[in-house]
Amino acid sequence: MADMEKDITSMLETLGSFGKDPAGGVSRFLYSKEWVEAQKYLEAEMKQEGLEVKYDEIGNLYGTLKGSKYTDETILSGSHVDTVGNGGYYDGQLGIVAAHLAIKYLKEKYGQPLRNLEVISMAEEEGSRFPYAFWGSKNVVGTAKREEVENIKDFDGVPFVEAMNKAGFDFRDESKGIREDIKAFVEIHNEQGNVLETEKKSVGVVTSIVGQRRFNVEITGQANHAGTTPMGYRKDAVYAASQMIYEIISESKKYGDPLVATVGKIEVTPNVVNVVPGKALFTMDIRHTDKSVLVEFTDVVNEKLNTLASDHGVEINIDMWMDEDPVPMDENIVKLIEQSCDANSLNYKVMHSGAGHDSQILAPHVPTAMLFVPSRDGISHNPAEYTEPADLAEGVKALMGALYELAYKE
Amino acid sequence: MADMEKDITSMLETLGSFGKDPAGGVSRFLYSKEWVEAQKYLEAEMKQEGLEVKYDEIGNLYGTLKGSKYTDETILSGSHVDTVGNGGYYDGQLGIVAAHLAIKYLKEKYGQPLRNLEVISMAEEEGSRFPYAFWGSKNVVGTAKREEVENIKDFDGVPFVEAMNKAGFDFRDESKGIREDIKAFVEIHNEQGNVLETEKKSVGVVTSIVGQRRFNVEITGQANHAGTTPMGYRKDAVYAASQMIYEIISESKKYGDPLVATVGKIEVTPNVVNVVPGKALFTMDIRHTDKSVLVEFTDVVNEKLNTLASDHGVEINIDMWMDEDPVPMDENIVKLIEQSCDANSLNYKVMHSGAGHDSQILAPHVPTAMLFVPSRDGISHNPAEYTEPADLAEGVKALMGALYELAYKE
Repeated sequence: MADMEKDITSMLETLGSFGKDPAGGVSRFLYSKEWVEAQKYLEAEMKQEGLEVKYDEIGNLYGTLKGSKYTDETILSGSHVDTVGNGGYYDGQLGIVAAHLAIKYLKEKYGQPLRNLEVISMAEEEGSRFPYAFWGSKNVVGTAKREEVENIKDFDGVPFVEAMNKAGFDFRDESKGIREDIKAFVEIHNEQGNVLETEKKSVGVVTSIVGQRRFNVEITGQANHAGTTPMGYRKDAVYAASQMIYEIISESKKYGDPLVATVGKIEVTPNVVNVVPGKALFTMDIRHTDKSVLVEFTDVVNEKLNTLASDHGVEINIDMWMDEDPVPMDENIVKLIEQSCDANSLNYKVMHSGAGHDSQILAPHVPTAMLFVPSRDGISHNPAEYTEPADLAEGVKALMGALYELAYKE
Repeated sequence: MADMEKDITSMLETLGSFGKDPAGGVSRFLYSKEWVEAQKYLEAEMKQEGLEVKYDEIGNLYGTLKGSKYTDETILSGSHVDTVGNGGYYDGQLGIVAAHLAIKYLKEKYGQPLRNLEVISMAEEEGSRFPYAFWGSKNVVGTAKREEVENIKDFDGVPFVEAMNKAGFDFRDESKGIREDIKAFVEIHNEQGNVLETEKKSVGVVTSIVGQRRFNVEITGQANHAGTTPMGYRKDAVYAASQMIYEIISESKKYGDPLVATVGKIEVTPNVVNVVPGKALFTMDIRHTDKSVLVEFTDVVNEKLNTLASDHGVEINIDMWMDEDPVPMDENIVKLIEQSCDANSLNYKVMHSGAGHDSQILAPHVPTAMLFVPSRDGISHNPAEYTEPADLAEGVKALMGALYELAYKE
């Protein structure tokens, strides 16, 4: 047990040394030098455990423990190897390290599985270098398209294709089909929220990943001098926006969990103390596990915003620029994980994921499930990201239980 | 009449050519090359009208038409010669041009006055180059202090003192007293608001300049992931700020004119779509002509903000960084101007000024009054600043009436 904690934290630390940012945390962007080094380190670790190692064309790394009986059936586990800028040691990394160690421990304890057990270190999930997210998982299931990335560049102007080729990779041959041997995917990830911590649980068993809709709302009033324009003569964009924001969030609280609504960004023009603002732009990020509720709530919000704009005599433009459906996890695997957690007396909670993950890309194609471990103070995408070693071990045990059920049982 | 319109617009245009900004409008900062040229142009115009011309130590320019009887009594009129960046052709300029032309017309029509009639082109009012406003008027009344500007620099790092010396000027000798001959000051300025335009008036007779209080309000909640943090677990700084802003402005509308309250600036941290904001900073600019109401209203606002912060479970820090008292204009001169406007059938409105002006600096020391002309669409501090020539002429006529009463009557 103490050894398991040590194994996990030590491997997380070593993996995190590739891309260690002088400003704190880890910055490991797709196809960078640090990214290549991290994949090479993982490749060496997999080989050392006797796994068969291969990369696919775009750079997803796989390590396979061959099955004895159902050799055309693979149980896959892992996560993404890229990070955000100044990210933490858990997001993505943990899913790879946990899968690697779970397979190692299972092999040590139970020997060869009936089905192939495979760890995957996915090339990319965050969209932090190029304006494209889920590049790794979308290539696993064949939904990434060449034309979507062919002309994009990173923050320094480096073309995606150039970076990919330089790292030694190329496009997937889209004329070929995708792998059909993958029978299940299980990903473990840090929660990136504070529910498990608050409820003092070590493991989360995820039933679904929320759908989300994101909007830009632009309010146009009229800029005026703050001293010389009587209140009755104003078209104050911030006054209108303040009421809108207050009412959206109040309304979302009335709906109750699992609905969440966030106004994360506000841009005021001209944004100076002594000018009545002529423009205000704010974002809305709205999520729910049930698509019908998500649609209903965003309809309610749209109507409310239009009514308020009219009340305030301002113009409004509402632009929905993201519309992702909720993704349910595979019911059978979820049930199996719950049973395994019960059998092993793990301290777990059945919950949804409010954040997006590679699992949502794989789930429509492969029976998929997810596990969470707690994030201290709910912090993620930050060097302060932290999970207690004891909880990491509980998470790996839950993952081992799941993989055992899927790969060792008839 | 048509000549008067032509005289005013032509002189405004010539004066505006000193510092004409390629990006539009006029950028004429204190002690710049353009500023020196503008003062030299005005000096030449004054000389041509037979005025006695002088500069004071810091660079305020005066042109005097000597009185015949009360030679130790001076009636002063004018405004500031500096502009904001990309300012218009009216703000400041108009007050100088109108005073110059009013004195010219009065001399042509009535000859020598009993008291001295003097035009002033004040060095600086806007605070656009250095972080110091009212440098011109504060030197007229002796309230500018050497130590306040001795160590300040402009946006390019040029020290105030270096710029002043290079333009040929120096500090006022603070051991000497200030002029005691100034018996009245009348300033004409564009309104910088839309009251006169909306009410179809050509001239505003100002009774007082509002007092103003400015605040920074900083709300500290907790930054969290927008997807993984249930609504009940949040300390959303933007949610709290939105209710505060909405209630402050709603409350100010209940108070009614002349109270104005503006939230012109909002800064959210980290200001990204998918993070519950941990911090929100907003400004409040609150103005009223009656100090007791200004104090009462800001007290109400403070209490309300603290209550709301407590309701939302967020921290609040309210910092009042400006507290200027209202400045009443001289009742006798105001009455005299109203009578003169009536006698000349001018289309005027008695009103307050919501913006700050040189007059507020002079008023505590010298009987002072102000006149406004309309600003099209209320626009100011912008190349689009505009006043109809017919309204300019009405304004100059009102000013002439005032100066006649003050300088030609026993």
